[in-house]
Amino acid sequence: MASDTAFRGARVLVTGGVGFIGSTLATRLVAAGAAVAVLDNMYGEGGANPANIAPVRDRVAVAIGDLNDAGTVAPLLDGRDFVFNLAGRSSHMGSLADPLADLDINCRAQLGLLELCRRHAPRARIVFASTRQMYGRPDRLPVDESHPLRPPDPNAVSKMAGEAYHLLYHRIHGLETVALRLTNTYGPRMRIKDANQTFLGVWLRRLIEDCPFEVWGGEQRRDLTHVDDVVDAFLLAASVPAAVGRVFNIGGERTVSLAELARLMVAANGGGSFELKEFPAERRRIDIGDYEADDSAFRDLTGWRPRVTLPEGLAQTLAFFRDHRGDYL
Amino acid sequence: MASDTAFRGARVLVTGGVGFIGSTLATRLVAAGAAVAVLDNMYGEGGANPANIAPVRDRVAVAIGDLNDAGTVAPLLDGRDFVFNLAGRSSHMGSLADPLADLDINCRAQLGLLELCRRHAPRARIVFASTRQMYGRPDRLPVDESHPLRPPDPNAVSKMAGEAYHLLYHRIHGLETVALRLTNTYGPRMRIKDANQTFLGVWLRRLIEDCPFEVWGGEQRRDLTHVDDVVDAFLLAASVPAAVGRVFNIGGERTVSLAELARLMVAANGGGSFELKEFPAERRRIDIGDYEADDSAFRDLTGWRPRVTLPEGLAQTLAFFRDHRGDYL
Repeated sequence: MASDTAFRGARVLVTGGVGFIGSTLATRLVAAGAAVAVLDNMYGEGGANPANIAPVRDRVAVAIGDLNDAGTVAPLLDGRDFVFNLAGRSSHMGSLADPLADLDINCRAQLGLLELCRRHAPRARIVFASTRQMYGRPDRLPVDESHPLRPPDPNAVSKMAGEAYHLLYHRIHGLETVALRLTNTYGPRMRIKDANQTFLGVWLRRLIEDCPFEVWGGEQRRDLTHVDDVVDAFLLAASVPAAVGRVFNIGGERTVSLAELARLMVAANGGGSFELKEFPAERRRIDIGDYEADDSAFRDLTGWRPRVTLPEGLAQTLAFFRDHRGDYL
Repeated sequence: MASDTAFRGARVLVTGGVGFIGSTLATRLVAAGAAVAVLDNMYGEGGANPANIAPVRDRVAVAIGDLNDAGTVAPLLDGRDFVFNLAGRSSHMGSLADPLADLDINCRAQLGLLELCRRHAPRARIVFASTRQMYGRPDRLPVDESHPLRPPDPNAVSKMAGEAYHLLYHRIHGLETVALRLTNTYGPRMRIKDANQTFLGVWLRRLIEDCPFEVWGGEQRRDLTHVDDVVDAFLLAASVPAAVGRVFNIGGERTVSLAELARLMVAANGGGSFELKEFPAERRRIDIGDYEADDSAFRDLTGWRPRVTLPEGLAQTLAFFRDHRGDYL
């Protein structure tokens, strides 16, 4: 587990900080004694939910705006020690519907933020939330960071370019950037209204509502990471100097098939049912098949490993959403 | 050499068609009997020069605008058989000074064009001018298309993403796209006012002006391609169905060190001199060192090979600029 004492008194900005992972990270940093500001554009189709930060609302400075709104963002950057950059849109289908908006948010605004960092926080450690999506359909499993990038949808192109700018700004401008390529993240505070934060959101919603959920295909293998383990990875990435200028995969405890995952969810829920359906044709063209991260580079460098098992993580997540149903449905 | 008869009567759009390579391609297509429209935003720091298309001005439809100006571009796309997409900015130093403008031109506008192609020219063959710059400093020579992409400057990030959208729009939307990663291209019609189209422009200018030119470093090896060979590659890429959906390196006849190239230029000019200078520090951070393309994939598929030797190409280029000095200085 990351050493939270490193962040006591640190001045930290979390972008996308009202979203799923961002708010979990901000909450953890508040508990660690950091001075935390969050920036979020409160985009309605994304993960932002005021309930996510309600418990720490009086101990966090919240700014609403885009990453490249200089007037809002520049004062937030001045004097920051750490920038956890989690703002972005992750909807693959959404990026097909409006690829230009996807590019503006995941790439153009990121470049704007980096330009602002050059001027206002040139010595901050910056950790960027990237994605394994850019590998496309893997040539081999597990996938390490040298795997060719073959973005399967517009979202993966924009994230690939956003990540490349982060690494480039280390090489040419000396910014202390690190990028983490995340796989499917789950846990309390995720968006479960719809599938905008992966299929898992919808599965959780249907279980909470005591309805059967649909599993498309079912044989695809994925590695899921609990949000607490992802937050650990962000804190470690920010703490270990040798991580600077590099990109790392972050994987899960183990891989599961989607059918197996569905059974684990029903078990964690103490009941429920699902239906296996054929994989929809319109999604097949952007589907990546099986995925398993080789995250040994990050584990070896930082000592990180996932601690939350799927059965306990799923049970805890379901309990959270039952307790906070009104805030998330 | 590409078979020009394939383009007789074809409806062709050349973007960046008032620029160096674009105008050379447009002129060749006019001679082949194609119905040619060109689109150019006439950006002052780029390659656009009205003199480039003056000889065919009465046989080409010229539109001025950006790639994503729907009102201008949509009518140009309707019914087109081929789109040669050469619009873009190639200045590496310029992209450092204004990375957002570089992104807008080389990536955002490209995505806008592809969206317009989906609607207005879904069956056109589209050939995109990409760049070897995105490989960064090579791990190995010669560099084939599987070499990792490590963009060394903002321009290479934006071109990488622009190229990725082209290939993606083939996979997910069925557009018939091909991308050619070009190395240094030289020849008549290039910009020689300054170094915005490579160091070679300035060398040519100084020779034409009977002044010594500066060679920075001198030991770096590059492969240069004459513009007529590049135009051949574009026509072949558009003609060979098996090229669709793929990206290909395009190299030169052979590699030379910059010092050797300088000597060849002086010889081709029948006189002149140059000074060897230390490589400037501010360029070192984006320099890629030696480069040599492995373009065997394209050669094997299409039969393409460079035909213009450096001594004859340089002599012909110098003769062109002496004859058209007033239009280019």
